[in-house]
Amino acid sequence: MRMVDLITKKRDHKALTNEELTWMIEQYTAKAIPDYQMSAFLMAVYFNGMTPEERSHFAFAMLHSGDVLDLSDIPGIKVDKHSTGGVGDKISIPLAPLVACLGVPVPMISGRGLGHTGGTLDKLESIPGFNVAESETQFKQQVQQINEAIISASGEVAPADRRIYALRDVTGTVESIPLIAGSIMSKKLASGTNALVFDVKVGNGAFMKTTEDARALAKALVGISKTAGVKSVALLTDMSQPLGITIGNSLEIAESIAILKNRGPKDVHDLTVALAAQMLVLGGKAASLEIASGLAEDALRDGRALNAFKQLITAQGGDASVVDDSRKLPQAKYRIAVKAAESGIVDQIDTNALGLAAMQLGGGRAKKDDILDLAVGLVLHKKLGTPVTKGDTLVTLHADTENVDAISNMVRNAYHIGDKAPKKTPLIQEVIRP
Amino acid sequence: MRMVDLITKKRDHKALTNEELTWMIEQYTAKAIPDYQMSAFLMAVYFNGMTPEERSHFAFAMLHSGDVLDLSDIPGIKVDKHSTGGVGDKISIPLAPLVACLGVPVPMISGRGLGHTGGTLDKLESIPGFNVAESETQFKQQVQQINEAIISASGEVAPADRRIYALRDVTGTVESIPLIAGSIMSKKLASGTNALVFDVKVGNGAFMKTTEDARALAKALVGISKTAGVKSVALLTDMSQPLGITIGNSLEIAESIAILKNRGPKDVHDLTVALAAQMLVLGGKAASLEIASGLAEDALRDGRALNAFKQLITAQGGDASVVDDSRKLPQAKYRIAVKAAESGIVDQIDTNALGLAAMQLGGGRAKKDDILDLAVGLVLHKKLGTPVTKGDTLVTLHADTENVDAISNMVRNAYHIGDKAPKKTPLIQEVIRP
Repeated sequence: MRMVDLITKKRDHKALTNEELTWMIEQYTAKAIPDYQMSAFLMAVYFNGMTPEERSHFAFAMLHSGDVLDLSDIPGIKVDKHSTGGVGDKISIPLAPLVACLGVPVPMISGRGLGHTGGTLDKLESIPGFNVAESETQFKQQVQQINEAIISASGEVAPADRRIYALRDVTGTVESIPLIAGSIMSKKLASGTNALVFDVKVGNGAFMKTTEDARALAKALVGISKTAGVKSVALLTDMSQPLGITIGNSLEIAESIAILKNRGPKDVHDLTVALAAQMLVLGGKAASLEIASGLAEDALRDGRALNAFKQLITAQGGDASVVDDSRKLPQAKYRIAVKAAESGIVDQIDTNALGLAAMQLGGGRAKKDDILDLAVGLVLHKKLGTPVTKGDTLVTLHADTENVDAISNMVRNAYHIGDKAPKKTPLIQEVIRP
Repeated sequence: MRMVDLITKKRDHKALTNEELTWMIEQYTAKAIPDYQMSAFLMAVYFNGMTPEERSHFAFAMLHSGDVLDLSDIPGIKVDKHSTGGVGDKISIPLAPLVACLGVPVPMISGRGLGHTGGTLDKLESIPGFNVAESETQFKQQVQQINEAIISASGEVAPADRRIYALRDVTGTVESIPLIAGSIMSKKLASGTNALVFDVKVGNGAFMKTTEDARALAKALVGISKTAGVKSVALLTDMSQPLGITIGNSLEIAESIAILKNRGPKDVHDLTVALAAQMLVLGGKAASLEIASGLAEDALRDGRALNAFKQLITAQGGDASVVDDSRKLPQAKYRIAVKAAESGIVDQIDTNALGLAAMQLGGGRAKKDDILDLAVGLVLHKKLGTPVTKGDTLVTLHADTENVDAISNMVRNAYHIGDKAPKKTPLIQEVIRP
C-alpha cells in the first residue's frame, strides 16, 4: 500500500476501505507516513468527506493507536456525556452526580479548555484539593463505589488523533465533520463507556454555527457509536448565548452548586435535567424520558444530587465544604461593572467574544500550556430578550487587575441592543438517534 | 502573515494576492513554511484552482526563488519552444537548427526524460562528445555566434518549484492546471527568452488526456507568458500515438537527422514546420504563418537546416559526422520483431505503454538517477489506420538483451487491431493565443 494512492483515491471521491484506513493510521502513528502526506489527505477529506463506514473505520483506527480502558468489571451500563464545547457550559458538573445518585455509573474522562471554551477539569480544580489525575485503578474503584468520577486521561489516549489534531490546526482542515467526529470518538470511546449522550452545541458560541452542520456532526457521532456497539443519542442545543449566567472556572462551580441546590438559571437546570433523562434511559433506569425527568427533578429537589456532588469532591481529595460556603472557592480581587451604553432589548450576543473575554481575564488558555487564573470570569446580568436601560450593568467582570478597559469594551460590544426581542430559539432544538 | 490563513483562504475559494503568494514561496524556499502546510495548500489548489492573476504570481514567485538568465545583450527576439512531453517527441532537435538558420536566436534550456516520456538532453547525449553542460557565458556566446544552443540549466533554476514538484508527486496533487502551469513557467521563464511557442500534447500518451484539459493548460501558459511580457502561442497537438516512428534516444536522433534531410515521417516533418513557422513569426522573421512555413520548407529542402544542426553539434563538442553516418550513434545489440497476432487495422495505440516499453528496455528513467542505455528503443512499422496482416512486424525492438518477452508482449498489447480505421485526429488541433 502507498499513501499517495490513498490520497489520490480520496481526492477522486472514492471511499477507502477499513484495511486502508487502519494501515494509514498505523503507519502514521509509527511515523512511517510523513505529515505532508497526512495533511494532503486531510484536505482531500475536507473537500470530499467520508462515508459513514469510513468515518467509523477512521475513528476506530485512531482509537486503537492508543490505550483503551476496559470497564467491564464494573457492573451496570456505564453512561458518559460529551459536549462539543460552548461558553459557560458547566453541565457535566451537576450532571455527573445527578445521574450517579440515580444508580447509573458515570465514568467521565474529561478535558481542559482551549480558546473561547472552558474545560470541566479546570473548573473542578478551582475546588481546593480536587485531584483529576487518578490512576486507572483508582478511577475504576471510585466508579464502583460512588457511581461517578471525573478525571483526566491517564495512559496515552489516541496519539494518532493528537498528532492529526495538531496538524489540522495549522493546515486549515479543522472544520470537517468526519475529522471532527473521528477526533471526538477516538478519545471518547477510549473510556470504555457503554452508552453516550452527545450535547452538540449550535450557534455563534459553538464550533458548529448552523443547525445543518450540527445535525451532520450529531449523525456522524451516533453513527460511529452504533458501529462501536455503544448506545447513544445526540441533542442539538442552543449556543446563541452563553449557558447560564457565569463564565469562568470557580464562578461556574458556584453556579453548578446552585443548580444542585435546585436554584440557579433555568437554562442550565433544564439542560441538566434533559441530558440526565437521556442518560437514565440509556442506563436502563427509566422506561421513558418523562419518567426519567421526574426522577432527576426529584433528586435535585431532595438534595440527593447535591450530596452525590459532595461525595465526588471528597472521593477526589477536594474540600466538600465549598458546597456550603462558596467563598472557599478562589475569589477575584476586583468586581468591575460593564454598563449598557444605550437602552433597548438585548437582541444579539456575540457568545464567542464573551468566551474570549473570560480567556483574556486569565480564565482560559490561548495556548495549550497557559496557566489559568481560576478566580476570574464574567457574571451576566442580561441575556437575550432582556430589556436594558442605559447605565444598567450588563456584566460584572471578576478580575485580578483593574486594568480591564479593553476587555470591558469587548464585552460591551458583544451585546447588541435593539428595539425588539429576538426570535426565541429553543434550548433543545433536535434529538438525533442512530 | 500566517500560512494557515492563506491555506484557509484558498480552501474557501478566495483568491490570494501577489503579496501573499510571493511571501508564501519566499518562506517556503527559506524552509520557514513546512512541507505539511504546503501540501495542504496544494490540495486546496487542486480542488479550487487559481485565478489567472494568481497563476502568474505563483509562477513568478517560483521563478524568482532561483537564478534567472539575462539574455538582453544578445540582439534579436529570442524564441524558445516548450513541449509538455510525449512519446517519440524529438521535435526540438530538428526545430532549433531550422529556426536558427532562418535568423531567429533559439536559446534552449532543456530537460531530461522521466517515466514514459524522453528528454531532449538525453537524446542529444547519444551523439558522441555532445556536451549539454555549458556555462552561462558559453551559452550566450554560442547563441550569439550560431543562433542556437541546447543545454541543461546551470545555476539553480526555480528551487521552490523543484521542492513543490517533489511534494506534489507524493501527495496526489500532480494533475492541477495552475500547478502544472506554474511549474513549467517558473523554469521556462528562467532562460530569459522573449517569446515562447508551446506544444501542448493531448491524448493517451500525454499528461493531458482530454482536449479540454489541454486547452485549459494552454490558456494558463499563454496567460502567464503575457503577464511576464513574453510573446507566446500554444498549439494543441495530437499524442494519441507516438510522434514519428522511433522511441529511444539514438533512434530519435537518427529520425531527427532524416527530418533535416527532408526525409522522415510526415507527422514529425509537419509538426516541425508548424512550430518553426510560429517561432519565425514571433521572432519577426515572417509576416504570416504561410510565408514562415515556406521559409522553413525551403531551409529543410536546401540543406541549410541540416548544416545548422552540424554547427550545433560541433559548437557543443559533438561529432558532427553522425549526420552523414548514423552508425556512429550507439547501436543496440539485438533487433527483435514484435509481430501482429491477428489481421485488421490498427485502430488504437496505447502510447503510454510504448513509452514505458522503451523505458523498460533501458532507454528511459523510472527514477531520477537511473542510468540510460542510449542505444535501445522502438521502431514502429505500423501506426494508427494502417492495415495489418497476422504475422506482420508491428514494432522492432532495439535491445541490449534478448530477454525481452515481457516487453514484446507489452508492445503487442499496446496495439489494438480492429476491423475499421479509427477516426483521424488532426495533428494540430487548436491554436491558442493570449
